[in-house]
Formats: sequence, C-alpha cells, structure tokens
Amino acid sequence: MKFTMAAMTADERATLQRLLRDTRVAHLGTLRGPAPMVSMTLFLAAEDFSCFHVHVSRLAWHTQDMEQDSRAALSIAQDDDGRADPFTLARVTLRGVANRLPNDGAEFERLKQAWLARYPESVINFELADFSFWVIRPNDARYVAGFGRVHNLSAQALADASA
Amino acid sequence: MKFTMAAMTADERATLQRLLRDTRVAHLGTLRGPAPMVSMTLFLAAEDFSCFHVHVSRLAWHTQDMEQDSRAALSIAQDDDGRADPFTLARVTLRGVANRLPNDGAEFERLKQAWLARYPESVINFELADFSFWVIRPNDARYVAGFGRVHNLSAQALADASA
Repeated sequence: MKFTMAAMTADERATLQRLLRDTRVAHLGTLRGPAPMVSMTLFLAAEDFSCFHVHVSRLAWHTQDMEQDSRAALSIAQDDDGRADPFTLARVTLRGVANRLPNDGAEFERLKQAWLARYPESVINFELADFSFWVIRPNDARYVAGFGRVHNLSAQALADASA
Repeated sequence: MKFTMAAMTADERATLQRLLRDTRVAHLGTLRGPAPMVSMTLFLAAEDFSCFHVHVSRLAWHTQDMEQDSRAALSIAQDDDGRADPFTLARVTLRGVANRLPNDGAEFERLKQAWLARYPESVINFELADFSFWVIRPNDARYVAGFGRVHNLSAQALADASA
C-alpha cells in the first residue's frame, strides 16, 4: 500500500469529515498486557482534527490500559445502513498517543460543554469521580473511503482534510 | 471488575446472540509494530460461538499484523440506532488467537457458502488470490450489556450463551 497524501477527492474529504464529525461511536484499541484490546466508546473530534477526545471511566479496561501504555488507536466506521455490501462502508483509523486531562480548568469546562452538546445523556458521568477526558493525538490515519480506495494520511494531511 | 460468569439474564443472553449473529461489522484489533491497530472488517460467528471468521486480504494491514503476531481482538457493537444515549449500546469484545485457513478443502467450501449467504456481494473477493479466511478463537469475552452491566466471559461461558 502506498502513501497517498494528496490524492483524496472532494467527495472523499467530505465523507471523512462526516465520519469524524457525525459518527457517535468509535472502537478504541489499547494494549492489554500486551495483547490487543478493543472496546466501544463515544468520541469527539477537535474541529481541526488535531486531536480526539474520549470521556472514560477509570474502571474501564481501556482506561487502565492507556494508563499503562499511552499508545492507542481509534477506529470509526460509517454506521451500517443496510446496504448490500457493508465492505464499502467508509472507515478511518487514527493511531496515536493518549493522555489523561485534568478534571478542572478552562479546557475541561470547554470540553465538557462540547461533550454535553453532543451527548446530553452523559451528564451523569460528570458526577462520577472515576470519569476523565483523555486526548488522543493522532500520529497518522488510515482512511478507507471504499473498496480499494485507501489513503494513508499524516497528522498534517488529516488536519488539512478538516477544512 | 469482577468475573460474572453466570449472572447473565435471559434478555442479556438474547441481546448477545443478536449482537454476534446479526451485526455485520466488527472492529479488529491487531498488533502493529507493536502498537495497537484497529480496523473495520466483516465477520461471521460460528453457530456455537466457539470461533469467529473474517475473510481478509493479504494487502490489508490487519492481515499483515496477524501474520506477524496471532493475538487479535474483535469488538462488535450494536448499530447506532440514534437513541438519546449511545453509551447504552450493547457491545462485546472477543480476545483470542487468529490463524489463517487454507483456500481449499471441505471446511473452506462450507465457510465460503456461509459467508456468501451472509455477504453475497463479497463473491468477487473469492476471485482474488490475496483473500483468505482467518479463524479467531476467543480466549475470553467482555460483554457490556448496558451501562455498568459488564460480563467477563470465559470461552466456555461464551459458548454456553450461544444456545
């Protein structure tokens, strides 16, 4: 597979933007002793795709995993719309490094408001001491826009695709 | 989190069965050098949940990863139905070992028929020399039936839940 940093069509860029802005569910890959672990989570993309946030409990395996090893991946697929061939669903994997954010301060308040605007039912999680935001900063992304249409994106190419 | 091998309700078991039999999309976790990698794939559960199959190309990263290290995880979530709180979507993670199967023989023919019954549009992939079935045999499963309803299942408990 070759690196295709500039070959994304306008349609593919629009699909990637929808994928990262409208999809509510991601699958978070972590290292667990040190086998691969993957689990569903909600997520929120920064407007410029420079980073992605999850709001997770210290009781969850993925959180414990990220505390041990910060390497993480987020896999996001178009919701299955019942099409004949689900293999053509668009999907993207972000690979990067995860860090826990403090549960206070201006950045926390900004994120909390953005999170609740998207996931209003999650308000209860902000009452629980075991939940925190983690930020995942991608090193790269692998975007499959459809069968055989694969784009390997640097963090910069991913950010460029946000506009 | 404690191991709850017998505490699944009948409703939770039925949901797990639907999740593994009706969902078409899974997110496959592999080790890539040796960071976590996750990518979308289609899958097929054995009737008794003893193993799970994927039909993947040697050109795909996850296939190359499994050739290097057979440890793998499959994360499967209920399709997002637009509910107020997507955090309550049921999901399960299977963690196990992946092995490539030969592209001929009675087992291949049986699997191919089952795969095509489920994914008829995938017929073209059987014309391509780079596609093979891989079998993932779970060592355990982590099933989140809803908020806070977590079941850690041994391979045997997972198989028991298939009936």
